[in-house]
Amino acid sequence: MDKDFDYKDIMIPADIEKKSFEIITNELGDRTFDPEIDPVVKRVIHATADFDYADNLSFSEHAVRKMQNAIRNGASIVTDTNMAKAGINKKKLAEFGGEVYCFMADSDVAEEAKKRSITRAAVSMEKAAGLGKNIIFVSGNAPTALMKIYELLTENKLIADSNITDGRSIVSGIIAVPVGFVHVVEAKELILETKVPHIVARGRKGGSNVAAAIVNAILYSM
Amino acid sequence: MDKDFDYKDIMIPADIEKKSFEIITNELGDRTFDPEIDPVVKRVIHATADFDYADNLSFSEHAVRKMQNAIRNGASIVTDTNMAKAGINKKKLAEFGGEVYCFMADSDVAEEAKKRSITRAAVSMEKAAGLGKNIIFVSGNAPTALMKIYELLTENKLIADSNITDGRSIVSGIIAVPVGFVHVVEAKELILETKVPHIVARGRKGGSNVAAAIVNAILYSM
Repeated sequence: MDKDFDYKDIMIPADIEKKSFEIITNELGDRTFDPEIDPVVKRVIHATADFDYADNLSFSEHAVRKMQNAIRNGASIVTDTNMAKAGINKKKLAEFGGEVYCFMADSDVAEEAKKRSITRAAVSMEKAAGLGKNIIFVSGNAPTALMKIYELLTENKLIADSNITDGRSIVSGIIAVPVGFVHVVEAKELILETKVPHIVARGRKGGSNVAAAIVNAILYSM
Repeated sequence: MDKDFDYKDIMIPADIEKKSFEIITNELGDRTFDPEIDPVVKRVIHATADFDYADNLSFSEHAVRKMQNAIRNGASIVTDTNMAKAGINKKKLAEFGGEVYCFMADSDVAEEAKKRSITRAAVSMEKAAGLGKNIIFVSGNAPTALMKIYELLTENKLIADSNITDGRSIVSGIIAVPVGFVHVVEAKELILETKVPHIVARGRKGGSNVAAAIVNAILYSM
């Protein structure tokens, strides 16, 4: 092994993370962020090494604080990708009473999607709307998940701004960061129109890693 | 919902993927790739919407074909992140007899790492080396995983170029795409020095999504 790079000398993970955030802050230079969103932007850059996210991420007013309040009140997370579920710190979320759901691999979802010729992501969102829970939606993959959430909101099958559920789920936040080339930009723009607290990666970029990084940044700054 | 963007009109996922690859090919313009690596490069761009990967990805000679041969012979995958494990098409890999291992959350790995003050990723790679299996290593997260693989190779605790195992694992490929700001670039350069078939995302960029996309591209073009 290269003598300048001894395996035994490397830093422990916590130190590596600290050093990484220092490098990110340094390279951002004059670009500074409101303290509420700063940890989110930097954790996404940390997860991607892509500084485009300094410009791409759009936050509705106090989206981070509002989602943190929802989590404090026991909100759960519904995601459209098992990769995002794998990356979210479920132990940390559980400290507040919430859990992470992903229905994408459920057999009833697959059957229903096939029957109606719609995507499993869309059916998954319907399933979530019927949970009667307080939910933060996290989309890292499927634009159809976002379109369905928008539709469910429009048709009052999902409730925003409420503390009482009547079988319908309450949506406390939407993290809209699917990646892709088809339908993705438009689907994310739809979420920007909603009154639900939201964090959107505008444009094509995003992904499960970005989704998990945003959720973890929200959890770690609570 | 916007009239120009009716949920019912959207394409099915297979068509979206096809259209996405057409867009990527079109935007790459004159940049063409050897047919062996073309599906890998494009699937990574598909997973990230980041065209930097057209330049970042480095392939050793016939790395894709060699890893496909290993998979045909039943090679398994060991990854340093549960997110990558979640994203890899395990059903497809199982058709050839392989499975995906990730030891990062194992309690024995955590204990050993703590005892020796090294990372869990490094201990995970040691555990993999002792499996006595034919393995493709996939790192989407931890540079220390790559450094440990390099060390194990140097110390002959992992065998390359062999069909016979004596308790040590045989390494048939290394997909080295961790993301990050500290130790990451150097760790990836170490893998470029090895004679093991490898695919490396040079520079800072990479991640679990990139790792899973590369493995899936290799599987889908078999």
